[in-house]
Amino acid sequence: MTNNNGVEWSIRMGDGSSMVLEPEHKYGVMRIWDGLKGLIMRFVMRVWMFLKKAWDLGVDEPRKFFHCLKVGVALMVVSLFYYMRPLYDGVGGSAIWAVMTVVVVFEYTVGGTLYKCLNRICATLLAGFLALGVHWVASHSGHQFEPFIMGTSLFILASATTFSRFIPVVKARFDYGCTIFILTYSLVSVSGYRVEHLLHVAHERISTIIIGTCLCIITSMLIFPVWAGTELHLLIPRNMDKLAKSLDCCVAEYFGHDDEESKKSSQGYKCVLNSKASEEAMENFARWEPAHGQFNFRHPWKKYLKIGASARSCAYCIETLTSCLDSKNQVPESLKNHLDSSCMNLSSSASRVIRELSTMVSTTTRSDKIDMAVEDMKNAVQELQNDLKSLPDLLVQPHDKVEESSTPKSLEKNDRVPSQITVIPLMEVIPIVSFASLLMETASRIEENIVKAVEELADSAQFKQPEDKMKPKNNPTSKIVSDEEGALQRV
Amino acid sequence: MTNNNGVEWSIRMGDGSSMVLEPEHKYGVMRIWDGLKGLIMRFVMRVWMFLKKAWDLGVDEPRKFFHCLKVGVALMVVSLFYYMRPLYDGVGGSAIWAVMTVVVVFEYTVGGTLYKCLNRICATLLAGFLALGVHWVASHSGHQFEPFIMGTSLFILASATTFSRFIPVVKARFDYGCTIFILTYSLVSVSGYRVEHLLHVAHERISTIIIGTCLCIITSMLIFPVWAGTELHLLIPRNMDKLAKSLDCCVAEYFGHDDEESKKSSQGYKCVLNSKASEEAMENFARWEPAHGQFNFRHPWKKYLKIGASARSCAYCIETLTSCLDSKNQVPESLKNHLDSSCMNLSSSASRVIRELSTMVSTTTRSDKIDMAVEDMKNAVQELQNDLKSLPDLLVQPHDKVEESSTPKSLEKNDRVPSQITVIPLMEVIPIVSFASLLMETASRIEENIVKAVEELADSAQFKQPEDKMKPKNNPTSKIVSDEEGALQRV
Repeated sequence: MTNNNGVEWSIRMGDGSSMVLEPEHKYGVMRIWDGLKGLIMRFVMRVWMFLKKAWDLGVDEPRKFFHCLKVGVALMVVSLFYYMRPLYDGVGGSAIWAVMTVVVVFEYTVGGTLYKCLNRICATLLAGFLALGVHWVASHSGHQFEPFIMGTSLFILASATTFSRFIPVVKARFDYGCTIFILTYSLVSVSGYRVEHLLHVAHERISTIIIGTCLCIITSMLIFPVWAGTELHLLIPRNMDKLAKSLDCCVAEYFGHDDEESKKSSQGYKCVLNSKASEEAMENFARWEPAHGQFNFRHPWKKYLKIGASARSCAYCIETLTSCLDSKNQVPESLKNHLDSSCMNLSSSASRVIRELSTMVSTTTRSDKIDMAVEDMKNAVQELQNDLKSLPDLLVQPHDKVEESSTPKSLEKNDRVPSQITVIPLMEVIPIVSFASLLMETASRIEENIVKAVEELADSAQFKQPEDKMKPKNNPTSKIVSDEEGALQRV
Repeated sequence: MTNNNGVEWSIRMGDGSSMVLEPEHKYGVMRIWDGLKGLIMRFVMRVWMFLKKAWDLGVDEPRKFFHCLKVGVALMVVSLFYYMRPLYDGVGGSAIWAVMTVVVVFEYTVGGTLYKCLNRICATLLAGFLALGVHWVASHSGHQFEPFIMGTSLFILASATTFSRFIPVVKARFDYGCTIFILTYSLVSVSGYRVEHLLHVAHERISTIIIGTCLCIITSMLIFPVWAGTELHLLIPRNMDKLAKSLDCCVAEYFGHDDEESKKSSQGYKCVLNSKASEEAMENFARWEPAHGQFNFRHPWKKYLKIGASARSCAYCIETLTSCLDSKNQVPESLKNHLDSSCMNLSSSASRVIRELSTMVSTTTRSDKIDMAVEDMKNAVQELQNDLKSLPDLLVQPHDKVEESSTPKSLEKNDRVPSQITVIPLMEVIPIVSFASLLMETASRIEENIVKAVEELADSAQFKQPEDKMKPKNNPTSKIVSDEEGALQRV
């Protein structure tokens, strides 16, 4: 009952009990201290969480970590222009533009860096020459007109360029260039009014910008390069695999064949739903990249977007399919058992088609198994349809058989049911029937959208024939199919 | 048979016919000329199309046009620092930073401009002080160590800052600040090695940056301001209205009640599917904006994203629903007639709920009709379920009644059918049954997602009570509902 420092004030009440008086100012200090401690703790926790998140990010994607080191290295190299006397004397105060270029232009992917570099150089040159021309005209029309001519031209060009940025195609490809164009034009045109040796300054500035961009391009292309095209090429099949996994898991969960692991991966389709923006960004950067790895300069990147869009249209279906899971317990077991094998069969054959297409894309090799897989999927659809057709036989069935499963409440009210025979009312059939028809719709979207999109890509990108992968031993045409299968299984 | 210049070469063949020889070089020139003409025509056409597109954009959204004029005006004003002697003498060569700031910082929305301005100023100050501090330490540790200390600190800070940009929350709010931080730190640290009056330069630079940002903020906030918050506030109800329209059109088309106009607007849900990125960008900018119009500084913009996400989950359903339209002709007319009114009723009550919610959001006023509308929708679901329950009666029906509609082929094969009675096989019921159950799923998503999300927004943003809109005349509680309806209809 004593405080830490041993002093205690207490008051004895009329009823003989005593009440300890806490020293109030002490309490106030304690409260402030507690509050402060809490604040500091929370701050430390937040910083700690932030660092942990950053660390996890670095462990997950070491290439992002390398990118940061690359930026550091490029900046160190470019700052040599300041630290080394001969380099500094070469470009003088304009070295600042080299540093600025490196900071602003260096992007994660090679395509992004090239996009910014090319935009920067072209826009600087274009705006520089234009500004010099207008400046020459203005300076020949008298000193009092000069600011008006320069100002008006600046106003018109800046407004027009800003407007052009709203046009989607300009926005996608030349957004950065537009900024640099306005920047350079305004800098040159206003400087021209004050600076004497305009040409000399312009020359210095452009050469330092070129130094900066070259440094960025070299660093990003030679040290652990991250190609936007390759990223896109990996993202699309990864998303397709996630889609296949989701489809499998969703159907397995409906029929109770799921485990813990599958529950986690059943959400994969959500990645597909949300990947539009990143796919488009990568495609936009990939078009700037030179030939690298197995990709030519004019690789049909646009077709990847089409595959992505078709995968998304499937993902919409699967999203709706997953909401059927809520009603899975209302479906009589007998119906589930009846459709179980054909639904599982359809989902596995559909996901096999997706996986086969994904392998086609990731290996850029045509597949001979794809036609067979699509045929299998069509047969599975047919099988499911047949099972659905035979449902009416099930709808009228002996009473005791239904009792085994969870007897639906509405049955009891049904007064049209004969004494020994019970009818599963249509309302109980509806959930599983709509599940099955959504599944068939998913299959038809796979066939009509994804398969076609991948085949278009295969045509435009001239995918390898599977024969190329085989050893050129005795090769009669009749044996090709089985050999190819072997080759593909080895892949 | 003569050329334009009258000269003609011809050869007489053995069979008496003659062949005209075209002068070959003339032909070649003509071909080049034609090619050139085609090239020029195509170029002119492309420029023309581009200009037309730009013109349409300007007509559609005049505010974008005003934005361009605003940029022009801001640049003109800032270039006065060059053209007017007293201003130029005040800031000297650093005026370049004011121009640069205006070009880089000016964004379409006020929030975007503020985001960049605040990021730029804070990052410049932070990096500037840090660099000056490190520079002071380095300059006191001997001239030969200075470049190493400065270089190492630059490397570490640049790498760390670049890495932090990969963390989503930093990317969303401080991406531009990170760039400016690296830029300023590297500029100050490398300049420090060469420039004598570092503090003077830093002071000049910061004051010009502040001049530039202030100019941008004033221009963007006072002349035709475009608030990101208001844009988001308008976008969400607009998308909801499109969703409602799509739902109506889709169901109307299924039952053949559609017209030309409805076919066009049935695609509105696609806007909702693709609006995630722009919603997030607007929310990100809106959080920087001060109180404006009816919005406080801390308006719960995040809740709008939630509404957007829930609208998207409905759009997924509607997307799947539209794919049912392909199979609408396979459904026997009798079934369609049976479900027509209840489906139309459900779709119209569901879209009424969405429209009511959209009005709630756009007027920031609670609605008393919403509970009734949701109740109506629930009743419509119940009605549709009842109609589905009564389907089995329809499935067995007199033969001649079915003959009126398009007789399905599979009927003829059905050998279990008694002579006078025909059964509509389950397979023919499936398309319309899954259509109906998708419709019910859409309704349940509206109820569980959109209604809840809008109510959360109404709670956080403290939406007005509908009473506020009424005239304060004799106001007994029993009359409130009817009066509010009147008030809302006036809205």
